[in-house]
Amino acid sequence: MELAITLHHQANAPLHRQLYDALRQLILAGRLTPGERVPSSRALALSLGVSRTTVTQSYDQLISEGYLQTAIGSGTKVCHQLPEELLRPAPVKRTLKTATAKTRRQVRPLRLSAYGNSLTDVEPFEPHETETPIHFKSGRPALDEFPLRLWRRLLLRHYRTSNARMLDYADNAQGYRPLRETLAGYISRSRAVNCEAEQIIIVNGSQQALDLITQVLIERGDTVALENPGYLGARRAFLAQGAKLLPIPVDDAGLAVETLAAHSSINPKVVYVTPSHQFPTGAVLSLPRRFELLKWAEHTEALIIEDDYDSEFRYSSRPIPALQGLADSHSVIYVGTFSKILFPALRVGYMVVPEPLTRVFARAKWLADRQTPIVEQRVLRDFIKEGHLERHLRRMRTLYDRRRQTLVRALQYHCGERVEILGENAGMHLMARVQVKMSDEEFVQAARQEGVGLVSARLYYLKNARRDEFVLGYAGLSERKIQEGVRRLAKIVKEH
Amino acid sequence: MELAITLHHQANAPLHRQLYDALRQLILAGRLTPGERVPSSRALALSLGVSRTTVTQSYDQLISEGYLQTAIGSGTKVCHQLPEELLRPAPVKRTLKTATAKTRRQVRPLRLSAYGNSLTDVEPFEPHETETPIHFKSGRPALDEFPLRLWRRLLLRHYRTSNARMLDYADNAQGYRPLRETLAGYISRSRAVNCEAEQIIIVNGSQQALDLITQVLIERGDTVALENPGYLGARRAFLAQGAKLLPIPVDDAGLAVETLAAHSSINPKVVYVTPSHQFPTGAVLSLPRRFELLKWAEHTEALIIEDDYDSEFRYSSRPIPALQGLADSHSVIYVGTFSKILFPALRVGYMVVPEPLTRVFARAKWLADRQTPIVEQRVLRDFIKEGHLERHLRRMRTLYDRRRQTLVRALQYHCGERVEILGENAGMHLMARVQVKMSDEEFVQAARQEGVGLVSARLYYLKNARRDEFVLGYAGLSERKIQEGVRRLAKIVKEH
Repeated sequence: MELAITLHHQANAPLHRQLYDALRQLILAGRLTPGERVPSSRALALSLGVSRTTVTQSYDQLISEGYLQTAIGSGTKVCHQLPEELLRPAPVKRTLKTATAKTRRQVRPLRLSAYGNSLTDVEPFEPHETETPIHFKSGRPALDEFPLRLWRRLLLRHYRTSNARMLDYADNAQGYRPLRETLAGYISRSRAVNCEAEQIIIVNGSQQALDLITQVLIERGDTVALENPGYLGARRAFLAQGAKLLPIPVDDAGLAVETLAAHSSINPKVVYVTPSHQFPTGAVLSLPRRFELLKWAEHTEALIIEDDYDSEFRYSSRPIPALQGLADSHSVIYVGTFSKILFPALRVGYMVVPEPLTRVFARAKWLADRQTPIVEQRVLRDFIKEGHLERHLRRMRTLYDRRRQTLVRALQYHCGERVEILGENAGMHLMARVQVKMSDEEFVQAARQEGVGLVSARLYYLKNARRDEFVLGYAGLSERKIQEGVRRLAKIVKEH
Repeated sequence: MELAITLHHQANAPLHRQLYDALRQLILAGRLTPGERVPSSRALALSLGVSRTTVTQSYDQLISEGYLQTAIGSGTKVCHQLPEELLRPAPVKRTLKTATAKTRRQVRPLRLSAYGNSLTDVEPFEPHETETPIHFKSGRPALDEFPLRLWRRLLLRHYRTSNARMLDYADNAQGYRPLRETLAGYISRSRAVNCEAEQIIIVNGSQQALDLITQVLIERGDTVALENPGYLGARRAFLAQGAKLLPIPVDDAGLAVETLAAHSSINPKVVYVTPSHQFPTGAVLSLPRRFELLKWAEHTEALIIEDDYDSEFRYSSRPIPALQGLADSHSVIYVGTFSKILFPALRVGYMVVPEPLTRVFARAKWLADRQTPIVEQRVLRDFIKEGHLERHLRRMRTLYDRRRQTLVRALQYHCGERVEILGENAGMHLMARVQVKMSDEEFVQAARQEGVGLVSARLYYLKNARRDEFVLGYAGLSERKIQEGVRRLAKIVKEH
């Protein structure tokens, strides 16, 4: 048998690969039919002028993929049932009346749960971000400063030494044990969090922690106290689960704990706080208020959710210890994330839960998605353990501090008394109160026309919303862009 | 000023790194005090006998990390606020009464939601797997056959060409758009699923799809019909959300749709099925029953959840098209996963939802964890688009087919009529009914003592549990191990 195959010795693809492709095409086109014998490797090698190894390699590949089969004594044949057929479903005659069904398509009612229904509203989960040349995005680290080559090297190390074990399901839902151990050490040093590896659950970013906490703790109708203004991702999670929200005002010492305590008749089950750098005002919860809050929780048996989203960046004073580390009882769930200190796309965060809740949360994590991907957890563990994290943090702190100072100075220089700056001592954003004779939407719109993006804080308020507050993230912007951005904003301020 | 620094020219670490470490230690130990001037780079280079560049490099690093600062005209000084201090929380005097609080620690009640409470039971989510030399694990692909080098190469490609964009939050929660487009093409070819990229939501494995579906659709008290026996991860998700379960029997043509239809008074809101290869029995839902099921759903306005967890592996006939592709109305949510065809630790799955439900599910995904990691989605897209997925599937199908035949033959040869084999025409496991005078636990225990792991199907039953059925996964086991494993099982069968 002579096969119509042409091989190119100069081509990119190796000869055995070209031969494999050609034979597979002949089989799929029906030129070599099921059951038909193919030439012996010796004969085909001779007729094509290639080595016998080349032919054997292509045959082996075709055998391993199910196109050819060998039977002792009868040579190599084309398989009866081809792999391509096993990939393609058999054609089927429709028996349902298509016309009637088609018309019904649009009218089928959506029968959602109360949870599902709560998601059908038009309220966004985060402020809309139009791309602008200069964008004061909040919560965005300086991604171009991330040591990506180093990260890649650590990643490769694990992929090189990896075995089947690493590719399999994890043996527990809580997260990679060595990472949890390293993490327990790190947050005890850096945040005075008081925990064992057993209390840590690795999650896909802090949003998953908030979602799991809400599901495990909140029953429809339960009251959740939260900061007003406050973080939208948390508020939306509580709302979707049917919580009643109790907004508590925030001043320059953080959550007004005395107002919370005054609501003694309501008795919230949970209070959600961002004590290190209140989102969005940037206030730091003072030490006396921390103790007040803990005492209140102790007394009312409420649980405190401490969302420590960007506490790593402090510029002028040492951080106040986390609530979790100050608490004597099981009253705090601590939530941390690597989205801000490494990069958001990593999707790794963690929660530290009181010991009696560990099992329930590990099971909730299993039901949610079984486990967080393991390779990233291994790389992250090396990154912390080998000192890269603390080095990266030191570098970023210096960088963000410069950017922050540039922003503060530019705002003071260009806008003078028309701008009041809040919450600039920590984190990656500050809040600016701008005196201007236009609404917040108009100001955001005017800025956009100048090529500058920023966000009104109004969205973050549940009640008593102010319309003169804007959130300015600076961590991801160069000093030149910060200066230019403020110059453009100042132009609008001066004109109005 | 003379600094007590010794550098080793032969050491592994470069000189500027050694110098950086030495200077940092001197600062942290207080030997160089805040505000103190350090020697000029020229002077220090001279005294240490190194190049000035070496000194400049170390100084630059220390400046960028916030240990040193330069002021014009006054040289380089140690910073007043050191980065290490900004990392460590200030010590705090306790004001809560520690003793009382400590004793209260144990008695604080767990106030969980009904969801949380449902997780406190002792029922496992999956069968317990003791490690044994030979383990017939189900749902485990041949991980040592995964083309890891190729995967690594694709991964590196993205990390090399990556920009800040890739490290940032995704611009939508539904998943990486090019992957969704590629996937829509792939599942339309391979499974006759009928969808646009807009209907696909990328999730962290199929468990997350089941969890999101449950949350969005099921209200406490709603009825969910499911296969008996059936997959535990789905059942547990429904239970946790407070669903009433309606178990429907399964025979060798899959779910007994006529039994489901007979329950007209109950009217389930959702029915959960695994039609391609029923878990655990391995039955394939016949085409007439598919149409019956669709007609029933059309009539009752129930939603069908089609979990297509291992449909890619068919050995003797072409696959029957997915329910989703046969349906004329918006009655099916299709769930797929890459855990079985690539590797479980990847944590990437997907769901195809009826178009009117797309927005709600995208929002539910946002609330759950904002997005699935992007790099993996990019790599997966290349893997499919460049033909690697279909090649890998062809290879695995041939391999699993051999392993399957080995298992079937060994069971027939060693156990004869004492074993009945079910569901062996597809997937990665089969079910064996074993005639033996001992309970299923005793058999599993006896097998374990012979170094063989297998799972009783009893756990998968909601009612009418059989005690003679065992699930045998074969995809991850060599033919030699399969033969040896069956030989050992046969020994137990013969002795009882």
